[in-house]
Amino acid sequence: MPEVAEHIVKSFEQELKRLRVLITDMGGMVESQVALACRAVIERDGDAASRAVEADPKVDATEREVEQFVIRLLALRQPMAQDLRQIVASLKITGDLERIGDYAANVAKRSLVLDQYNPYSLTGLAHMSGLVQENLKSIIDAIGEEDTDKALQVWRSDAVIDEIYNALFRELVTYMMEDPRNITPCTHLLFVAKNLERIGDHATNIAETVYYAVKGEALIDARPKGDTSAYAVIRPARD
Amino acid sequence: MPEVAEHIVKSFEQELKRLRVLITDMGGMVESQVALACRAVIERDGDAASRAVEADPKVDATEREVEQFVIRLLALRQPMAQDLRQIVASLKITGDLERIGDYAANVAKRSLVLDQYNPYSLTGLAHMSGLVQENLKSIIDAIGEEDTDKALQVWRSDAVIDEIYNALFRELVTYMMEDPRNITPCTHLLFVAKNLERIGDHATNIAETVYYAVKGEALIDARPKGDTSAYAVIRPARD
Repeated sequence: MPEVAEHIVKSFEQELKRLRVLITDMGGMVESQVALACRAVIERDGDAASRAVEADPKVDATEREVEQFVIRLLALRQPMAQDLRQIVASLKITGDLERIGDYAANVAKRSLVLDQYNPYSLTGLAHMSGLVQENLKSIIDAIGEEDTDKALQVWRSDAVIDEIYNALFRELVTYMMEDPRNITPCTHLLFVAKNLERIGDHATNIAETVYYAVKGEALIDARPKGDTSAYAVIRPARD
Repeated sequence: MPEVAEHIVKSFEQELKRLRVLITDMGGMVESQVALACRAVIERDGDAASRAVEADPKVDATEREVEQFVIRLLALRQPMAQDLRQIVASLKITGDLERIGDYAANVAKRSLVLDQYNPYSLTGLAHMSGLVQENLKSIIDAIGEEDTDKALQVWRSDAVIDEIYNALFRELVTYMMEDPRNITPCTHLLFVAKNLERIGDHATNIAETVYYAVKGEALIDARPKGDTSAYAVIRPARD
C-alpha cells in the first residue's frame, strides 16, 4: 500500500475509534447521571439530585460534539458499508443517550419534591431502578465492544422492566386512593417510574442500533411493547 | 458542464428533493395521527383512537425508509456543506417525528380508558392540544419550505404550551384530591397532557434542527424549559 494511502486509512481508523470513545464517554456520563438520579429518589439524597441536574448541559454539549465530528467525518471521508452504518448509528445512539440524560434530570428534580414527604416503601421502584441501571451499563459496554449478544440480552430483558412498571403504576394509584395526601408524592413517583421505563426503552433502542450497525440487518420490526399501563383502570376500594 | 456531470448533479438534486418529500410525508402522517389522538381524548372518539394507534407501524416504517435512503445517499454521493447538514438533519427530524407518533399512539390508548368515565371539563386540554397541533403543522411546513422564520416562531411559542401544561397538572391533581374516583381518569389525563407537552418539545427540537440545517449555526444552546411541574407541590384542601 502506498505510504500516503496507508496514512489516510490509519487516521480514518483513528477517527472512528475517537468517535466510539466520544460515545462511550457520553454513555458513562449518562450512566452516572442515572445512578445519581436513582439515589436521589431512593435514598432521598438532595446532593445527588443536584449533581444529576447539573450534569445535563455537559451531556447535551457532548451530543453536539459528536454531531459536529460526524459531519466532519462524512465530509472529509467517504465511508462505506459498515463504517457508514457505524457513523450513522452513532448519531442515533447519542440522540438516545441525550434523552436518557433528560429523563434522569427530570427524575432528580422530582426527588426534591418527594423529600418533603414521609418515606414510602420504595422497594418496587428500587428494584426497577436497579434493572434499568444494569441494562444501561450493559448497553454502553455493548457499544464499546460492538457486542451484539450483549445488545440482544438488553433488548430482551426490557420486558421485565415493563412488568415492574405496570405493577408500580397500580400500586401508586392505590396509595393515592387511600389518602389524598399521597396524591402529590405518588403523582411524582408515577412520573419517576415512567421516566425509568422510558430510560429502559431508550436502552432497547440503542440495542437495536448497535445490532444493525454491526450486523447490517434489523433486529426486528415489532419489538414487544410490555407497558400496558396506558390501559390500566384501578377503582377506589370504596367505589 | 459535461453532460454526464450535469446528469449526476441533477439526479442528486432529485434525490435530495425525494428525501424532503419522504420527510414531509412522514410529517403529514404524524400530524394526522396527533389530530386523531387529540380527537379521541377530547371528543371521546373510539374510532379515532384506533386509527391513531394503527397508524404507528407505517410511521415507524417510514423512519426506516428514510434511514436506508440516507445511508445510500451518503454512500453513493459525497455531499458537502449544506447538503450534508440537510441529510444529517433529516435523520434527526425523522427520529423526532417517530417519537411524536409514539406519543400520539399512547394518548389514543389512554383515551379508551377515559371513555369509561363521565366527561370532565377538558377545556384546558383542548386548548393545549390545539396549540400543539398548530406548532406541529407549522414545523412540518417549515421543513418543506426550509423556512427558518417559521421554525423560530414554533421554537418561541413552546413556552405557552408549557405554561398550560403546568396549570393542567395542578388542576388534575386537585380533581384527584376532591374524589378518589377521579384518580384513575385524572392520572391518565396527566399522562395525556405530559405526552402533548413532549410532542411540543419534539416540534421545538425539529425547529432547532431546521434552523441549523439551513443556517449552519445553532439556534441557541439553552432553550428555555418552561415545564416546572416536576417541582409542583399541591396539598389537599383538607390537609
